[in-house]
Amino acid sequence: MTTQALLDAVAGGVRVVDLGRRLTVGMPQSPNHPAYWHAHPRRHGDMVRADGGSAANDMISMGTHVGTHIDALSHVSQDGRMHDGLGMVELGVHTIEPMVRRGVLLDVPETLGVERLEAGQEVTVADLEATLEKQSIAIGAGDVVLVRSGWGQHFDAGDGDTFRGLSTGVPGVGEAGATWLAARSVHAVGADTIAFERLAPGAGHGLLPAHRVLLVEHGIYIVETMALEELAAAGIHEFVFVLSPLPLFGATGSPVRPLAVVGR
Amino acid sequence: MTTQALLDAVAGGVRVVDLGRRLTVGMPQSPNHPAYWHAHPRRHGDMVRADGGSAANDMISMGTHVGTHIDALSHVSQDGRMHDGLGMVELGVHTIEPMVRRGVLLDVPETLGVERLEAGQEVTVADLEATLEKQSIAIGAGDVVLVRSGWGQHFDAGDGDTFRGLSTGVPGVGEAGATWLAARSVHAVGADTIAFERLAPGAGHGLLPAHRVLLVEHGIYIVETMALEELAAAGIHEFVFVLSPLPLFGATGSPVRPLAVVGR
Amino acid sequence: MTTQALLDAVAGGVRVVDLGRRLTVGMPQSPNHPAYWHAHPRRHGDMVRADGGSAANDMISMGTHVGTHIDALSHVSQDGRMHDGLGMVELGVHTIEPMVRRGVLLDVPETLGVERLEAGQEVTVADLEATLEKQSIAIGAGDVVLVRSGWGQHFDAGDGDTFRGLSTGVPGVGEAGATWLAARSVHAVGADTIAFERLAPGAGHGLLPAHRVLLVEHGIYIVETMALEELAAAGIHEFVFVLSPLPLFGATGSPVRPLAVVGR
Amino acid sequence: MTTQALLDAVAGGVRVVDLGRRLTVGMPQSPNHPAYWHAHPRRHGDMVRADGGSAANDMISMGTHVGTHIDALSHVSQDGRMHDGLGMVELGVHTIEPMVRRGVLLDVPETLGVERLEAGQEVTVADLEATLEKQSIAIGAGDVVLVRSGWGQHFDAGDGDTFRGLSTGVPGVGEAGATWLAARSVHAVGADTIAFERLAPGAGHGLLPAHRVLLVEHGIYIVETMALEELAAAGIHEFVFVLSPLPLFGATGSPVRPLAVVGR
Repeated sequence: MTTQALLDAVAGGVRVVDLGRRLTVGMPQSPNHPAYWHAHPRRHGDMVRADGGSAANDMISMGTHVGTHIDALSHVSQDGRMHDGLGMVELGVHTIEPMVRRGVLLDVPETLGVERLEAGQEVTVADLEATLEKQSIAIGAGDVVLVRSGWGQHFDAGDGDTFRGLSTGVPGVGEAGATWLAARSVHAVGADTIAFERLAPGAGHGLLPAHRVLLVEHGIYIVETMALEELAAAGIHEFVFVLSPLPLFGATGSPVRPLAVVGR
Repeated sequence: MTTQALLDAVAGGVRVVDLGRRLTVGMPQSPNHPAYWHAHPRRHGDMVRADGGSAANDMISMGTHVGTHIDALSHVSQDGRMHDGLGMVELGVHTIEPMVRRGVLLDVPETLGVERLEAGQEVTVADLEATLEKQSIAIGAGDVVLVRSGWGQHFDAGDGDTFRGLSTGVPGVGEAGATWLAARSVHAVGADTIAFERLAPGAGHGLLPAHRVLLVEHGIYIVETMALEELAAAGIHEFVFVLSPLPLFGATGSPVRPLAVVGR
Repeated sequence: MTTQALLDAVAGGVRVVDLGRRLTVGMPQSPNHPAYWHAHPRRHGDMVRADGGSAANDMISMGTHVGTHIDALSHVSQDGRMHDGLGMVELGVHTIEPMVRRGVLLDVPETLGVERLEAGQEVTVADLEATLEKQSIAIGAGDVVLVRSGWGQHFDAGDGDTFRGLSTGVPGVGEAGATWLAARSVHAVGADTIAFERLAPGAGHGLLPAHRVLLVEHGIYIVETMALEELAAAGIHEFVFVLSPLPLFGATGSPVRPLAVVGR
Repeated sequence: MTTQALLDAVAGGVRVVDLGRRLTVGMPQSPNHPAYWHAHPRRHGDMVRADGGSAANDMISMGTHVGTHIDALSHVSQDGRMHDGLGMVELGVHTIEPMVRRGVLLDVPETLGVERLEAGQEVTVADLEATLEKQSIAIGAGDVVLVRSGWGQHFDAGDGDTFRGLSTGVPGVGEAGATWLAARSVHAVGADTIAFERLAPGAGHGLLPAHRVLLVEHGIYIVETMALEELAAAGIHEFVFVLSPLPLFGATGSPVRPLAVVGR
C-alpha cells in the first residue's frame, strides 16, 4: 500500500476507538506501585508576564504500572533470569517498538452469554477456542490479542476495590491460556483487568504464572487495565491496533493509550 | 475504506517513523518544569516469591512539558482568559482526542540549503511558503504540520545547553508564522525545538507569542521537542500522523511518542 | 542559664525520647495526601568511580501530611479565610520557628484506666482536666501539649486500617477540647492519631472542627501521627519539646521528628 | 541535670539559631540528585466542605541530598564495601539517632582574616588547628564540628552556579582535614558548602575523599549545605547542637533543619 492510499483512507474517515483509561488521582491501581498523583506547581495568575500571558503546568508522580499500561520484558524474572537471559537495559520499555499491527478482540463474556465473568474465574483454553469459533476469526502470528472479561465495568462504575480484587479475586487467563496464546506467536496481549492473570480470591497479586509464560519464556508484551467495553459494544473483533509506549529509558513499563482503528 | 483494507495495508507492511525522544534522567528540558526522574523501588532479587518469580518496577516524577510532549489548550492564558473562555477541566489534556490524521513536514533547512537554522533565527512566512513550494505540497484544514529547524541535532549530540538556548536562543516560528498556520486551520503543529517559538538570544523562555496565537486564539495543539531528523533524512513530507496523549485528567500537557506512518 | 550550663547538662547526659514515626512505603496515612514513596535512583555498584568509590542516593515523593507531621496555619481555611486573614506565604510551614519549649503529655488512657481509648471516643474537657489533676501538672502559655489516646498502638501493630479509622472512627479531642486548649494559650498541640480530631465512625476525615479552632481561630500548630507510647510507658509528663520543621517554602505542612528531652 | 533544670533553662530563655536552608523550587543543588519540587494538589477553595471549611495540601518530590541534609553511612561505599561491612538497611538514615550534643563552629575565614575562602581552596590541618587556637576551644570526642568556609554567602546571594561550583570549584576540607577530624572521634561534621569536600575547579562532584574517610572508614555523619553565617556573625563557637533526621527507612540521607541552642 502506498502512503497516498493510507492518506486516502484517513481522509475518507476512520473510526478510532480509545482503549486507554483516564488517569485520575485516586483511580484503582495496584498498591505495589507508586500511585498516580498530579498537581499544578503553577496555575494561571500565579505569575503573569508583562504582556498579559501566563502558563500553567504540572507535576506528576507515578509508577509505570498504573492506569492502562504495558509491561516491558524486564518487568518479571524467573529464577533470577529474564527473557533470553538479557538485562534491564536490553529489555527496558524504551526497546518496545511502536505497534501498528492487526489486533483481535476475544470477547469471552459474549461467547459465554454473560455480562461479565465472575471474580476469580479462569478464562480457559476452551473459552478462548470457543470465542474464536463464535467470532469466526483466527489469530495470526504477530497479532495483538485482547481478552475481554467484562471486569472493566467495575472500573467504569468506580468500584475500585472490586476491580482490584485483592481479597475477592479477578477473572482472567491462567497459565494454560497464556501457553495457548504463546503457541500462536502473538506479539502482545491485553486485558481489561488490573493484571493479565486469573487472580484467585484471597490470593492477592502475588502469583503471576501468565506473566512468566508470556514475558519471561516467550517475550510477549502485556497490556493491562484496558478499556474494552466500547470496542465490545460495537462488535469490533478485528482492527488495526496502535500503541506507542513512552520510551522511558530502563523502565519496566509505561502508561499508554492504545487505539483500535477501523474503517467506517 | 474498510477495516479489511486497512488491515491489508498493515499486513503488506507500513513504515513507522518514531517522532518521540527517549526519556532519560538528565535530558535537556525547560527549568520551568519538574525534571524527569526515574528509579526502581524494586529490582529483581529484592523480593523473590516462593515460586522463584520476581517483579521489578518503577517510580517516575516529572512535569508534563518534558521530553516530546503536547501542550493542552489549558497550558496558556492571555489576559486571564483561556481558549473560548473555557476552564482548566474543559481544556485539559484528557480532552484531546487521539490523532490519526494527515501530517505534513515542512523541512525549512532543506529549503534554505542549510544543515540547520541559526540560534534565534525566525522561521518566516516566506520560509514556510517557499518550503511548501519546494516540496510541491499543500496544507489542508485539519492537518498536523511539523516545522523542522534542524535544531534537534543538538539534542541528538547531547548538547543540552545549546538545545535549550536559554542564553543563546533557538530558531522557530514567530507570531507571523503562527498566524499563517492558524489561517490554514491546522489541527496541531509540532517542532524539533524545546518550544514552538523563535526564542531570541538572551530572552529565555518568557515571551511566547506563537503559543498565544495557536493555543489561546485558535485552539491549535502544539507538540514540542520532536525527533524529526529521521523523517527529514528519508525525505518523507506527507504521512499519517498518529498521536495518543495520556489522558491525564486536568493536566496542561502530556509526554507523547508521536508516529509518522507511511507506505513501503 | 548560660551556654556552659546547657553544655554541662548535655555532657552530664540527657534522655532523648523519639516522638517520630519511621517513614516506610505502605505506612498508614490519609488517602487525601500523596503517599510516601522511596527508591534509589542509584545503588552502590551502579556507577563506580575510577578510585573504587560509589555513591547511592534516593528519590522521594510524598505529601507533607504523612508520617509524623506538623500542620502549618495555611493548611485550613474557614469561609474562605485563614488565620488572621493572612495568605499562603505568610502562613506557610517555612514560617514556623523551630520549637525548644516546655512540653506536656496528657496521658488520657492512663487517667481513664484503659489501655487505649475506643474508636470514635471523644476526649472531653473533663478527661483533660482529670488528667491534669491526676498528673499534678499545669499547662502554661506557650507550652506544647501532647494528648495521648493510645491509638498509636494500632500503628505499632501494623494495623493501618484501624489506625486510619476511615470507617470505624478514631478517638480524639473535639471542638470543646480544642477550645479548652486554645484558652490556655498553648503554642502547639499533638496527638498519636492520624488527625488531631475525634473522628466519628463512618464519617471519614471530612469534618475537622478542632483544626478550625486551633489553626484558623487561634494560630496554634498541630502535630499528628506522633509516637507517644515510649513517653507514656516511661511516665514522662513534662519535658523539653524540640521540633524543627523543614522550611518548605509555601507548604502547608512538613514531616517532622519531634523529640522530648529530659534529665537522667 | 534534672528535667526541671532543663525546663528552667528553657523558661529562662535560650537562643535558637537556625542552621537550615529554606527549601525552594530552583534552589542550588547537585544535579546528581532529584531536584526539590513542590506543588499544591489542593488549594483553598478547590473543594469546600458544607461547613465552609477547606484544606490545602502539598505534593513534594525530591532527593534526600538536597537543601540542608545529612548523609547516612550508606551513602558512600569504597571498593564495594560500606562502613564496617554493613548493609543498606543497617546503615540507613533511619538508624541515625537524633543528636543533642556539644557543637563546635570552626570559623576558618575569620581565622584567616578573609570574608570567605576562595573557590577550590583546601581547608588545611594547619587552618583547623589555627582556628582552634584562635577560638581558644577544644574538640571533644562525640562533638559535632561545623567547618565554616563562608561559601554559603553565595547561596544567600542567590548565586547558585558559584555555590555549586561544578566548573569553578568549592572550598572545603580535603582528605587530610577529614583524617584529622576523624582522629578526634567526632560524632558528625558539617559545612556550609554543597559537599563536605574541597572541590577542585573543573573537577565536578566526582572525587569525594573526605566522604570516604568520614562515612566509610570512621562512621562519622556529614551535614551539608548548612546556613552558618548567622552563627558566625554572632561569634558563637560552642553550642548545643540539635539535629533530628527524618527516619526515612533505608534512605541514604535526609533533609534536616539543624539547630544551635545557646544561653542568652
